[in-house]
Amino acid sequence: MTDDPNFNQPLGGNQMPRFGGPATMMRLPSAPNAAGLDACFVGIPMDIGASNRAGTRHGPRQIRDESRMIRPFNMATGAAPFARMQVADIGDVPINTFDLKKSVAIIEDFYDELLSHDAIPLTLGGDHTLSWPILKAIAKKHGPVALIHVDAHSDTNEHMFGETVAHGCPFRRAWEDGCLQNDKVTQIGVRTTGYAPDDFDWGRSKGWRVVQAEECWYKSLAPLMAEIRERIGDAPVYLTFDIDSLDPAFAPGTGTVEPGGLSIWQAYEIVRGCAGLNLVGCDLVEVSPPYDPSGNTALIAANLLYEMLCVLPDRRG
Amino acid sequence: MTDDPNFNQPLGGNQMPRFGGPATMMRLPSAPNAAGLDACFVGIPMDIGASNRAGTRHGPRQIRDESRMIRPFNMATGAAPFARMQVADIGDVPINTFDLKKSVAIIEDFYDELLSHDAIPLTLGGDHTLSWPILKAIAKKHGPVALIHVDAHSDTNEHMFGETVAHGCPFRRAWEDGCLQNDKVTQIGVRTTGYAPDDFDWGRSKGWRVVQAEECWYKSLAPLMAEIRERIGDAPVYLTFDIDSLDPAFAPGTGTVEPGGLSIWQAYEIVRGCAGLNLVGCDLVEVSPPYDPSGNTALIAANLLYEMLCVLPDRRG
Amino acid sequence: MTDDPNFNQPLGGNQMPRFGGPATMMRLPSAPNAAGLDACFVGIPMDIGASNRAGTRHGPRQIRDESRMIRPFNMATGAAPFARMQVADIGDVPINTFDLKKSVAIIEDFYDELLSHDAIPLTLGGDHTLSWPILKAIAKKHGPVALIHVDAHSDTNEHMFGETVAHGCPFRRAWEDGCLQNDKVTQIGVRTTGYAPDDFDWGRSKGWRVVQAEECWYKSLAPLMAEIRERIGDAPVYLTFDIDSLDPAFAPGTGTVEPGGLSIWQAYEIVRGCAGLNLVGCDLVEVSPPYDPSGNTALIAANLLYEMLCVLPDRRG
Amino acid sequence: MTDDPNFNQPLGGNQMPRFGGPATMMRLPSAPNAAGLDACFVGIPMDIGASNRAGTRHGPRQIRDESRMIRPFNMATGAAPFARMQVADIGDVPINTFDLKKSVAIIEDFYDELLSHDAIPLTLGGDHTLSWPILKAIAKKHGPVALIHVDAHSDTNEHMFGETVAHGCPFRRAWEDGCLQNDKVTQIGVRTTGYAPDDFDWGRSKGWRVVQAEECWYKSLAPLMAEIRERIGDAPVYLTFDIDSLDPAFAPGTGTVEPGGLSIWQAYEIVRGCAGLNLVGCDLVEVSPPYDPSGNTALIAANLLYEMLCVLPDRRG
Amino acid sequence: MTDDPNFNQPLGGNQMPRFGGPATMMRLPSAPNAAGLDACFVGIPMDIGASNRAGTRHGPRQIRDESRMIRPFNMATGAAPFARMQVADIGDVPINTFDLKKSVAIIEDFYDELLSHDAIPLTLGGDHTLSWPILKAIAKKHGPVALIHVDAHSDTNEHMFGETVAHGCPFRRAWEDGCLQNDKVTQIGVRTTGYAPDDFDWGRSKGWRVVQAEECWYKSLAPLMAEIRERIGDAPVYLTFDIDSLDPAFAPGTGTVEPGGLSIWQAYEIVRGCAGLNLVGCDLVEVSPPYDPSGNTALIAANLLYEMLCVLPDRRG
Amino acid sequence: MTDDPNFNQPLGGNQMPRFGGPATMMRLPSAPNAAGLDACFVGIPMDIGASNRAGTRHGPRQIRDESRMIRPFNMATGAAPFARMQVADIGDVPINTFDLKKSVAIIEDFYDELLSHDAIPLTLGGDHTLSWPILKAIAKKHGPVALIHVDAHSDTNEHMFGETVAHGCPFRRAWEDGCLQNDKVTQIGVRTTGYAPDDFDWGRSKGWRVVQAEECWYKSLAPLMAEIRERIGDAPVYLTFDIDSLDPAFAPGTGTVEPGGLSIWQAYEIVRGCAGLNLVGCDLVEVSPPYDPSGNTALIAANLLYEMLCVLPDRRG
Repeated sequence: MTDDPNFNQPLGGNQMPRFGGPATMMRLPSAPNAAGLDACFVGIPMDIGASNRAGTRHGPRQIRDESRMIRPFNMATGAAPFARMQVADIGDVPINTFDLKKSVAIIEDFYDELLSHDAIPLTLGGDHTLSWPILKAIAKKHGPVALIHVDAHSDTNEHMFGETVAHGCPFRRAWEDGCLQNDKVTQIGVRTTGYAPDDFDWGRSKGWRVVQAEECWYKSLAPLMAEIRERIGDAPVYLTFDIDSLDPAFAPGTGTVEPGGLSIWQAYEIVRGCAGLNLVGCDLVEVSPPYDPSGNTALIAANLLYEMLCVLPDRRG
Repeated sequence: MTDDPNFNQPLGGNQMPRFGGPATMMRLPSAPNAAGLDACFVGIPMDIGASNRAGTRHGPRQIRDESRMIRPFNMATGAAPFARMQVADIGDVPINTFDLKKSVAIIEDFYDELLSHDAIPLTLGGDHTLSWPILKAIAKKHGPVALIHVDAHSDTNEHMFGETVAHGCPFRRAWEDGCLQNDKVTQIGVRTTGYAPDDFDWGRSKGWRVVQAEECWYKSLAPLMAEIRERIGDAPVYLTFDIDSLDPAFAPGTGTVEPGGLSIWQAYEIVRGCAGLNLVGCDLVEVSPPYDPSGNTALIAANLLYEMLCVLPDRRG
Repeated sequence: MTDDPNFNQPLGGNQMPRFGGPATMMRLPSAPNAAGLDACFVGIPMDIGASNRAGTRHGPRQIRDESRMIRPFNMATGAAPFARMQVADIGDVPINTFDLKKSVAIIEDFYDELLSHDAIPLTLGGDHTLSWPILKAIAKKHGPVALIHVDAHSDTNEHMFGETVAHGCPFRRAWEDGCLQNDKVTQIGVRTTGYAPDDFDWGRSKGWRVVQAEECWYKSLAPLMAEIRERIGDAPVYLTFDIDSLDPAFAPGTGTVEPGGLSIWQAYEIVRGCAGLNLVGCDLVEVSPPYDPSGNTALIAANLLYEMLCVLPDRRG
Repeated sequence: MTDDPNFNQPLGGNQMPRFGGPATMMRLPSAPNAAGLDACFVGIPMDIGASNRAGTRHGPRQIRDESRMIRPFNMATGAAPFARMQVADIGDVPINTFDLKKSVAIIEDFYDELLSHDAIPLTLGGDHTLSWPILKAIAKKHGPVALIHVDAHSDTNEHMFGETVAHGCPFRRAWEDGCLQNDKVTQIGVRTTGYAPDDFDWGRSKGWRVVQAEECWYKSLAPLMAEIRERIGDAPVYLTFDIDSLDPAFAPGTGTVEPGGLSIWQAYEIVRGCAGLNLVGCDLVEVSPPYDPSGNTALIAANLLYEMLCVLPDRRG
Repeated sequence: MTDDPNFNQPLGGNQMPRFGGPATMMRLPSAPNAAGLDACFVGIPMDIGASNRAGTRHGPRQIRDESRMIRPFNMATGAAPFARMQVADIGDVPINTFDLKKSVAIIEDFYDELLSHDAIPLTLGGDHTLSWPILKAIAKKHGPVALIHVDAHSDTNEHMFGETVAHGCPFRRAWEDGCLQNDKVTQIGVRTTGYAPDDFDWGRSKGWRVVQAEECWYKSLAPLMAEIRERIGDAPVYLTFDIDSLDPAFAPGTGTVEPGGLSIWQAYEIVRGCAGLNLVGCDLVEVSPPYDPSGNTALIAANLLYEMLCVLPDRRG
Repeated sequence: MTDDPNFNQPLGGNQMPRFGGPATMMRLPSAPNAAGLDACFVGIPMDIGASNRAGTRHGPRQIRDESRMIRPFNMATGAAPFARMQVADIGDVPINTFDLKKSVAIIEDFYDELLSHDAIPLTLGGDHTLSWPILKAIAKKHGPVALIHVDAHSDTNEHMFGETVAHGCPFRRAWEDGCLQNDKVTQIGVRTTGYAPDDFDWGRSKGWRVVQAEECWYKSLAPLMAEIRERIGDAPVYLTFDIDSLDPAFAPGTGTVEPGGLSIWQAYEIVRGCAGLNLVGCDLVEVSPPYDPSGNTALIAANLLYEMLCVLPDRRG
């Protein structure tokens, strides 16, 4: 590990009050693109793929705003990400908010360029449609990847209202596009209602591990994560975390709320449980600020994104 | 079980966006009354029996609004209620909002008529006063019933401010009216403060099982429900679920908040744990929309009402 | 005028408390389509054409909810619309929320069918993109129409983010499609900032009357409406009312807020000032419930829609 | 005028931060009853007479909370009420929240006792039903009174849902009870919709002056108040101010919202225009905190109550 | 234990509706100071020591408001505090909101006076800076004390923005001032991010027990409390409870939110687990009403303060 | 006027959706300081000088967020500020949030440096205390200045709670420091309550023009602004605009609310009426986001700051 004093650092509370300073992720420096970075935060302000409540278009801005309290050192795990990586906030993907299909193409192009710089993207969503084009770009660079998918929904619909591009379909599309290593896909937290058993069994039929929320209740998920790490080994992994995987008590500010979800303690265990994996990208999606008046859902999302940063593999070692 | 293709179905998200369509429960068809139905949703927009915060009068409308996401199939239990029952939303009871005592009589009359059609009522409250007249109508039809009462409060006050009709008294009144099988009554979730030990011991003195919230902490309630099912056997059962039984983290939008309550995971276990019982009616009460800006308390209530529908006994078998 | 006792009436407060009953517009009966109606309320739950804040997809539901207080008789003007017209709520247009361009086609088809019944549509939006397909359907039936367009924005952009279909473009599109009588178009309330003078002058170059908000400050708009009526004569007229024409003090719940707007008193004068015109359709758009926690913006919108109903021409004369 | 240094004074901002100190009206001393007072603030925490939105039960507490900023001297009129009157906050009337009719009797008894002390009551509501029992007590002491009634509604319904006691009926009841001098009654601000012209004409038929909101738009109401003062002369006068008289832009936090109302500038002119009248009582009703998240409606109500205090007649002169 | 019928009692719901009556803590009588009291509630309306979100200045008023539902008897533990102690609400400390350092001195003086009366103070905060001057006053009276410190943060910073007086520093200051028995200090719930391991290890280096939140997940804290009681024995103890120790699901209304915190069930176990200790003072800090629109965070705080009252040692025995 | 194509331009809606992109003022480029700029936006995130509600510390961030919709061209006045000036957002002043007096010194130093670059500062507040140190820096550079002070309060207190530095005192301090040309000072909008007539007369005694809110009701303020321009001539002018000058209907999100204020139409007239004056600095203060859930108060503030930019004198001509 290289401990480079020139790495970007979050602007600290002793330099500027927490409620001031740049509204970037963790008050990090901005960068115009991913060149020279080990990891980068990037926003996708999109909600036109959402089927119920609106508002995830405002997610990236609110996550950044509420990230202002996060300090550099991880008191639980001892991780010090800014001591070993060059990290910046590279801003938002300029999606076309009037055309979902064009936006999907814009996102894929953006990540093709981003990944050409060898930085690991940490994406602030935005509705879950965005994981499909990201996975396409990821697979172009890394080949098919393992997937850890934390969500209340399987997001493997064949279509929604006749459309193949929507926030309930990204992982079906990614599967069709050969982006996934099917024996290394896990879905955690799916629950409540659907149209038929196939909503969850489709993934199972492909070899995916589908952990319904009921299997998680009252339990530490550390054992599950150990099992997942074992299964994935050193394959490249993509982590996609839909904030609606959490029970609405913990994350009220989202659009497709399903009761009976994961606890925040389990969310921490899942992300921290990715330490040691070969993560090649992460996203945190579906934060909807209009339903989050306290800002706490965005604040939690920001903390989970920080925890993702902490478990990124060492690239400079 | 008869799987009748002509049964009413909720309007699906592929026919109409979730945020449109009729604002009935689960976007089901309306019906003018319970004729021909196996089960029906009915609202009682009332809060004049409430002693602290106002607003449960708006509960039925918000529960219906937030029920719009619920799909027909239960992914956890495999229940498919609309495949085996004819269900509709029969609208609201026209209470007299200026006179609580008259409203109680209106409710009793309404349920006498409703029950004449052999449909099982699933009631959207409304303050908890409403369970008394419903139980009176239920007992006229079925005789004294077993009761599963989930609540932060025992609601067995002799009187409130000198009144015998109020949201803290319905189960004392129902007991006086002989509506209950005392050896088959269970109260779950009662807690915090009272005037004297008798607040909870009164029920115990009648033979009721009173499970204080502290007995539930950190635990699955599946064993408790097994015990309750054993105790009740095939007696007719009424399930009354006060949303304030849940801890306010899970259900902030209610009027008489008591910390330290049940978790949503336990709520699901309680309702799903009623499968196999001879349910003759259910209610979900005390949702107060003015204290539920995200709508999530109503959304949870809607999901619990759906789960109640899923465990209704098979009437066509 | 035919005073037919069989006309639909709003459900009154003496039959059902205001906070109960069906959540249709004014608690009117629902109808499956416009057959046999003189006028109908119809919702378009859409926001994918919006460029800034999200949420107008929820507009129709909240407008209907907050319409529950409106009584049948207009105390200011003496209008009694339900004594002379058959009116119902025909529900929502099933737009495709994942594809704006397809939604525009769905809307046009829906209104073609609607207008085949000779009912006058009163549309609850939804983002302003919807006025374009409605005007196309209207023009097919009535030929080019006069237009009264009340708005903070001219909505005559050539394109937005390269797209020709968006909520800033409908009246440019309608002009291109020959839907408008250019000497009978008036825009009222436009203001604040733009990209160039042409933002407002484009319409002027076509012969439109463009009344900037500053011309309205501190004044009754009755004289302006007299002038507009004079200018329009007996031509068919379409009235499109964007709630953001109002200053945000009066209508906070909208997505593209511009300070310095019209007052509610002026809004009433505009709508009531349409009495005597040959109105062939009206819409009220851009109510965004997530930014309207008190519900008052939707309530105002509901009242303005009622006032539109009051000034519809007599068709049964 | 006696300037007594021993008169109660509001707790000042230089003694205690504005956000601390007792939550009484204007942080005045409490008193157990009206003995020895020239004027008193009294709360009636009631909403069971309300027909639409709930919540006015919480009005007195929030008005008091938001009154904390009001300083003793009136910068506009030069009034210094605490230099010439002994004023205190005597707390709340212990209504029976489960029975509206009993509450009305409790209120009447309370005001009988209060008025036995010769203090002028300034009442914090609470729903408008309360004005009827207050007027009955007032009339017992002073005989029939002149009335200045500021409201969006005439509140002269024969009945609501068959009931004669409700917030839409108090002035019909007061008229029946002979509490009013009919040639000295003025209603200001009534508007929007009703059931029939009689809603406003009933009062006119009794000789009342009914000023519809439309007559007030864009105008100073100083001339109207001069006319009212002329008409009333030195008769005893009761002022009842329903906060819903204001347009919802100015007072969103109320239950029965009607657009197109009075402005706050007009509200000040009305209350200040009562200077010189023989006021024997005042109330400010219908503030509903659940619909007033900023607290500003309660804050405005508190300021208007202070302005009422400023125009009370000199009793010690 | 002396059961004195003359002890102050909270105003009951059968005397005055819960939403009326004095806005004191639990609607207890006010007292001008602590003379003659066994315990007293006192507010410190302060937020100028807060580093992130504002608003704790409004904490004491909202906690009192939301305490209105608490009844006198503890249903879980059988405690009946008003049967054995004379308790009152002695109002707020008049801090200087423009100068934090002067406010700290004002607080210390206030508690010196308060403690001269032998009453045990239960403090409603306010930001956490206030614990330092209270501990100084406590130590003057009782000598160094054991400390139970429940918090998301260790609050042992050497300085913040160069200042030694701030809400992140009180326990470092109290340690410097010799207020603490280092072998009897426990911190519970600290977590998430910091500047370095020393943030939590500083206390450990002094002999403190520091229980990070992760050690608490999924567990009853009854064993921890048994251990703490064992360790403290009969030493005088101060309990300081920062509401941000709770996970934001349970207590959203605070200023320095850290996910992954304690549950409300654990909070109850901690406070109830203090029974038998020689408590000499307690505080509940960092409730921020602007981020608590439902009022439930304040309501929980009020309940925890009541539970603290219940475990105060018997002084009259 | 130089029309330099290299001037900074706000990021347009056709390059990036309005809800994405950098959260700077109007999405302008950031600059590290004022070098090379004609005008600059600068934030002062401070509320420790506020006497009532908290929260203005969050003002700069929310104003910037809500400024995202503002386009470059002024449709009402024809101003095109970015065509003639180099403008950037230079970020926030790093105040010491734990010490108001030190913060005042930090601000003065910051503006000394800023003004050394000859840029005109447009300040986003923050509580009104900040105008004093800015005026001191301004006067060092420009000598005593004319002042246009728009506010509900005169802010000329000798002290508050014994302190001379607080948000009610800045203009008394600036007067003491000789920063003002007394014959060219105007206060607009002061109103409601105070401690004594001197609250407003103190300024008058110095020769200031004090225009109470009542003088403004129902009127265009264009004539007042003409008079002010006449009086000031070509003297250097500072414009300080407290958002609480507006009636709370128009600007609810502030801390010291006074009803009966200016309308937004008058606010526009005041700022636009400054065209032609020799403005040397402007501020917009007292926006409190916690009381502005819709964001509209911040949005209005952002628009007024843009209007200030539009009327800055031509420096490149």
